[in-house]
Amino acid sequence: MKLKVKDVDLSTGGPFIAILHEQDAKSLGINAAERVRISRLKKKQQIVAVADIATSGIKPGEVGLFEEPLKHLGVKAGMHIDIELSARPSSVKHISEKLNSMELSECKINDIIDDIMNNRLSEVEMAYFVAGCYTEGLSMKETAALTKAIVKSGAVLGLKKKVIVDKHCVGGVPNNRTTPLVVPIMAALGYTMPKTSSRSITSPAGTADAVEVVAPVSLSLEKLKEVVSKTNACMVWGGSINLAAADDKLIRVRHPLSIDPEGMLLASILAKKKAVGATHVLIDIPCGYMAKFKSKKVAEALGAKFVALGRMLGMKVKVVLTDGSQPIGNGIGPALEMVDVISVLKGNGPTDLREKAVYIAVEMLKLVNEKNPEQKVLDALDSGKAFAKFMEIVIAQGGRKHIRIPKARHFYDVVAVKSGPVSLINNKGIAVIAKFAGAPEDKAAGIYLRVHKGDKVKKGEVLFTIYAKSKMKLKSAVDVADNVEHVVMR
Amino acid sequence: MKLKVKDVDLSTGGPFIAILHEQDAKSLGINAAERVRISRLKKKQQIVAVADIATSGIKPGEVGLFEEPLKHLGVKAGMHIDIELSARPSSVKHISEKLNSMELSECKINDIIDDIMNNRLSEVEMAYFVAGCYTEGLSMKETAALTKAIVKSGAVLGLKKKVIVDKHCVGGVPNNRTTPLVVPIMAALGYTMPKTSSRSITSPAGTADAVEVVAPVSLSLEKLKEVVSKTNACMVWGGSINLAAADDKLIRVRHPLSIDPEGMLLASILAKKKAVGATHVLIDIPCGYMAKFKSKKVAEALGAKFVALGRMLGMKVKVVLTDGSQPIGNGIGPALEMVDVISVLKGNGPTDLREKAVYIAVEMLKLVNEKNPEQKVLDALDSGKAFAKFMEIVIAQGGRKHIRIPKARHFYDVVAVKSGPVSLINNKGIAVIAKFAGAPEDKAAGIYLRVHKGDKVKKGEVLFTIYAKSKMKLKSAVDVADNVEHVVMR
Repeated sequence: MKLKVKDVDLSTGGPFIAILHEQDAKSLGINAAERVRISRLKKKQQIVAVADIATSGIKPGEVGLFEEPLKHLGVKAGMHIDIELSARPSSVKHISEKLNSMELSECKINDIIDDIMNNRLSEVEMAYFVAGCYTEGLSMKETAALTKAIVKSGAVLGLKKKVIVDKHCVGGVPNNRTTPLVVPIMAALGYTMPKTSSRSITSPAGTADAVEVVAPVSLSLEKLKEVVSKTNACMVWGGSINLAAADDKLIRVRHPLSIDPEGMLLASILAKKKAVGATHVLIDIPCGYMAKFKSKKVAEALGAKFVALGRMLGMKVKVVLTDGSQPIGNGIGPALEMVDVISVLKGNGPTDLREKAVYIAVEMLKLVNEKNPEQKVLDALDSGKAFAKFMEIVIAQGGRKHIRIPKARHFYDVVAVKSGPVSLINNKGIAVIAKFAGAPEDKAAGIYLRVHKGDKVKKGEVLFTIYAKSKMKLKSAVDVADNVEHVVMR
Repeated sequence: MKLKVKDVDLSTGGPFIAILHEQDAKSLGINAAERVRISRLKKKQQIVAVADIATSGIKPGEVGLFEEPLKHLGVKAGMHIDIELSARPSSVKHISEKLNSMELSECKINDIIDDIMNNRLSEVEMAYFVAGCYTEGLSMKETAALTKAIVKSGAVLGLKKKVIVDKHCVGGVPNNRTTPLVVPIMAALGYTMPKTSSRSITSPAGTADAVEVVAPVSLSLEKLKEVVSKTNACMVWGGSINLAAADDKLIRVRHPLSIDPEGMLLASILAKKKAVGATHVLIDIPCGYMAKFKSKKVAEALGAKFVALGRMLGMKVKVVLTDGSQPIGNGIGPALEMVDVISVLKGNGPTDLREKAVYIAVEMLKLVNEKNPEQKVLDALDSGKAFAKFMEIVIAQGGRKHIRIPKARHFYDVVAVKSGPVSLINNKGIAVIAKFAGAPEDKAAGIYLRVHKGDKVKKGEVLFTIYAKSKMKLKSAVDVADNVEHVVMR
């Protein structure tokens, strides 16, 4: 059927959408969410789009197209195109098989990822894929195939190095900002560590948000390579380079129900490591009441899968379980966390953060069979070599030589209402208060902890300070602090 | 955040969509597919919409709204509204529970259906619900709760009758048009049978498509009640009245993968029966090679669930397994099927169709404890009372007194290429040919079978005739006939 193009003047970056009038849809035998093949008249360009049925806004004889299909087809409003019902892509069948508990071959998983990358699957179909992986599980073979397919879907770094180290923390603990410490330590010791990190999704800060306080983190692939060849390392936002592109599309449909199929979690993390060419990877799983993993047993089982998957992908993976029972460091929020990081690099700073960074760096050195790892890590820190390397990386990424960390104008001290020992710091409560204060959007907003678990506190002593950009945000954070569990004294 | 309304000038009947510029979305902390609460300034109207993030078409400071949210809020382009991040509705949590194999309470299932009806769930979230019901299954308790919730979601007939009969066929066999025979037989015998049927989704004709050849089938609820009170019965399209409204929304997300969770199938069918107030329901499950149910065992297990669910809902349900191994009747396509139906009513017509209709009607009479059921059904048919009742219903629905069945202008005889017995009629092949000929959109298009399974056929004898509106459609159907299995001789 020939239809006249209407430019809907919208772009959403999702699957291609073609909007038909219900009358045309009926005579073409097309139901909502079915596929149509759209062809330019007398030209070769063709795309497959998902049909949406309009009851108003689109006239009979018209087809509404979003920006992406217009661009791909090279057509403009008023031109005519040919439209017909299109078969479902074969990957829809594979998704049904997964929902029916079948194991998918590498080839079928490639089909699915390929169709996702080419916008051939609707979000509903992708959701069925995620649901199938979640309820039916993925075997290690399927997980390896998925990881490889995700790596192929995006850019790869292609550094020519024999050893490339990397680390990842399976989140859940506020602050815990070890990456900006471990990266300069490892780089100062001569290791290549092209670290990509995420921004916050639900937490008060991601590593990329914190590093951004001192240096740009949205680098192009070219710029990133330049930084790594200059300094041995980088600390950038993974989202600005196109690594593991399919993963972002899957995360988008996982988000509404916060569904984390284990196989997808494994694939998502190790695909990003494989894409930067990592040969040795340390995975940190914080455990404990309040962390993502409460039970050591569950964390260990997941850890074993990381190691096995790494082996299937040609990466040496080591897993460490760390204490996730309370925040690490004092600052929570991008700038306040960066204050802690720089203090540690300068030889001061919170002991727990320093100790954790040292521990992680030592474990990484053990993984690459370095001798005397403790001594080397402590030397790199205490000699100032790690701080010098940190500054080298910051400047290479485009940061200032003289670091200036923004400060919040307004603050409020939350004090102890009674005397006694601190029995618990509620990670979730602390994170919520920091977010209401404005983190991570307001870089300087957040919380600075003045006490830790086990400390004996007197009535009236400051437990933590809330920082915010505006009085309004400070007030809303203080209100939240009145109503959630944060520093608990029993 | 205050935003200026842009009228996107589209309407799709799905969940409310609000399109934000990516910059505003970021500063509100809103990700794609998250919810926003939209409020009119200084007014009470509020809606919750799913956010879509635009990279073009929507400027910063603007919010694009589809027709439905504009209408619900009572706002126009250029007006300002207030927008904020909204929590996920609680039903999202229930859906997660289902994916985690938990049994949902009646209350939680009501929440889900309620949120679906109020456009508070995105299609992705609905897909997760369907996936959970599919992979984790629904208990009988959950199925009953789902059925009741679906009944509540739409209109109910509310006839004041002690006995209301109904039937349903769990499809899969072409033609098999027993409904327009059983309805007038039962009504002629004094039973109330307010029958709603579906249109074709993937088949060459649904019952509603066939009845529409002789009478309007898109009746309002008022008109339907009038027809039933006049004639004891009706034969209408279920889609025109708002029975079991939630079911249509669920079917929309089930369609892309053709996923039929058993519990949803049961709920979908019996909710429609409950909504018309049925007290006695006959379910026909055709079985056999080529039918939807190949194994009698599987059909029997499903049948037992229909009976149990009926009991939980206060309906007496009986299940019969019938022969689904070949088409029933000769015509396939709306008009050609109606030709068979009227022939049977007039005392002629295909024996297999007559016999099946008699069997179904007899089983229904047994279900309501009628004495001498065979004799009564045969008498209704042979005395002409059933035909008179059929005409009464047709006229009450707005059909003509003198039935005129449209004929296709073009036809083609497919002949036997060798002599021998007919060993098989491939239902799927026959259906595909009829659809390429133009059924069900072209009422007169389709196939008329000249032979049946077991018939001995000579080379050159006509197996079936293809009817089409245009030469082009005829040609494409003939091409398909050359390439699919249809009447098989071995």
